[in-house]
Amino acid sequence: MEDPWKREFEFAVEVARKAGAEIRKAGESEIRVMTKSCTVDLVTKTDERVEKIIIGSLKEEFGEGTHCFIGEESVAKGEACVLTDKPTWIIDPVDGTTNFVHGFPFVAVSIGFAVNKELEFGVVYSCLEDKMYKAQKGKGAFCNDEPIQVSDVQDIKKSIIISEHGVDRSPEKVTKIFSTMQKILCIPVHGLRGSGTAATNMCLVACGAVEAFFEIGIHCWDIAAGAVIVKEAGGLLLDVNGGPFDLMSRRMVSANSDTIAQRIIKEIEIFPVVRDDALVQKK
Amino acid sequence: MEDPWKREFEFAVEVARKAGAEIRKAGESEIRVMTKSCTVDLVTKTDERVEKIIIGSLKEEFGEGTHCFIGEESVAKGEACVLTDKPTWIIDPVDGTTNFVHGFPFVAVSIGFAVNKELEFGVVYSCLEDKMYKAQKGKGAFCNDEPIQVSDVQDIKKSIIISEHGVDRSPEKVTKIFSTMQKILCIPVHGLRGSGTAATNMCLVACGAVEAFFEIGIHCWDIAAGAVIVKEAGGLLLDVNGGPFDLMSRRMVSANSDTIAQRIIKEIEIFPVVRDDALVQKK
Repeated sequence: MEDPWKREFEFAVEVARKAGAEIRKAGESEIRVMTKSCTVDLVTKTDERVEKIIIGSLKEEFGEGTHCFIGEESVAKGEACVLTDKPTWIIDPVDGTTNFVHGFPFVAVSIGFAVNKELEFGVVYSCLEDKMYKAQKGKGAFCNDEPIQVSDVQDIKKSIIISEHGVDRSPEKVTKIFSTMQKILCIPVHGLRGSGTAATNMCLVACGAVEAFFEIGIHCWDIAAGAVIVKEAGGLLLDVNGGPFDLMSRRMVSANSDTIAQRIIKEIEIFPVVRDDALVQKK
Repeated sequence: MEDPWKREFEFAVEVARKAGAEIRKAGESEIRVMTKSCTVDLVTKTDERVEKIIIGSLKEEFGEGTHCFIGEESVAKGEACVLTDKPTWIIDPVDGTTNFVHGFPFVAVSIGFAVNKELEFGVVYSCLEDKMYKAQKGKGAFCNDEPIQVSDVQDIKKSIIISEHGVDRSPEKVTKIFSTMQKILCIPVHGLRGSGTAATNMCLVACGAVEAFFEIGIHCWDIAAGAVIVKEAGGLLLDVNGGPFDLMSRRMVSANSDTIAQRIIKEIEIFPVVRDDALVQKK
């Protein structure tokens, strides 16, 4: 069987587009009429509604109980966040909620799919830009159906690196994050950027707009889809200590090349985070 | 005379669109076929060519010698950078050259126009997003012909703030820049962002996607057009010490409100920069 997950992949693209349209609509119709101070509820509601649309559509298409789901909203409500061998959808309905509230132009729907704990495909729809990124294992990566590939820059001094400040404002973490960024800027590199969404950041690596994206504190649903897209675009994924990438570890370097990745890893000051699957592991 | 600079304004919009199309074309046709390591020349060439297109068109339309020009490329070649009472075009042909080389999605054409040292209108064309921002003094600000306005957020803790790391990598400056950013992040704010172009950053303030943008080290051509757009969208401009904004000082806070501006100003660690008009002043 050449392409066992073709139907799932094509359906994921369709459902991501539908979800993105819903997000755009919510942004346009609702945020405009309310003061920004009241938008926290809107975010939660949009997140929940879009996750329901996605998971509902998938269950309807593939039958209740045949697939597992890991989604930001369902995990927040206490559902398990553990990867088994079963076909599993890993979903962030609205990646970049802060951007969404503010109308900052990067908001993405992220849908990854894993079987036997291995990622089979990923779909990231950057819905305000209307860019559909997608990749299936072994079949290359695409943006709006055009093939994409990572940058060929090997010289760190000619690179742009992406990272994020994260949502945790505890002084030790923030100090390490800024210290890492400052050291990387002063290597020196061409520049540092951050779109405010991990899924989009990974697509920016995949299409060669930046050479690398690293972060400690991201969740599996932020990066599952992007991980396939980066790899299929010719890039690679590592742990922030240089070891193998672990989807549940909340630590990641994605880069165009090992050279760039290793140079960044030298500068990353690591701080502890609780694994996505920690609660289950403790059982 | 109700609108003495209408013809200039309309022509500026037209020429910005033409220049943006040229930039897109250069990005698509030329960057794709070369390794990124060889793009420095391309940047310089594109910058020069686009500035020539803009200034050439303006001279042709309005007659040689009737207007003055301040442009990034011409100043780099030793032309004066001083604002007189004469009608003066202040132009950045390609704002965000690092983004341009890398294909990072924010690159802008910035065209400001001043008479009697006062800014009359500004046009910023974010050419990869195809967003045309424009404003005339007293007539409101627009993005793709839709009126825009700054955000109504007054609570700094609900804000997104934009700044940039700049191009200077001297340790004292970089340390002050990171220290300022860290203090602002930990106020706390919702997030920090940076598009990599000052002109676009100002438009993000104007359309309410972020609450403020500040930077030390920008040039008059980066912000002249954006300054009009921010003000006409209901925002304000200040010096980084809270004093009046000075286009030639290379220091600026642009914000949706005085409340947000003042709160940021408290945290900004100022470092010295040479004024844009310093060479002339020394005469």
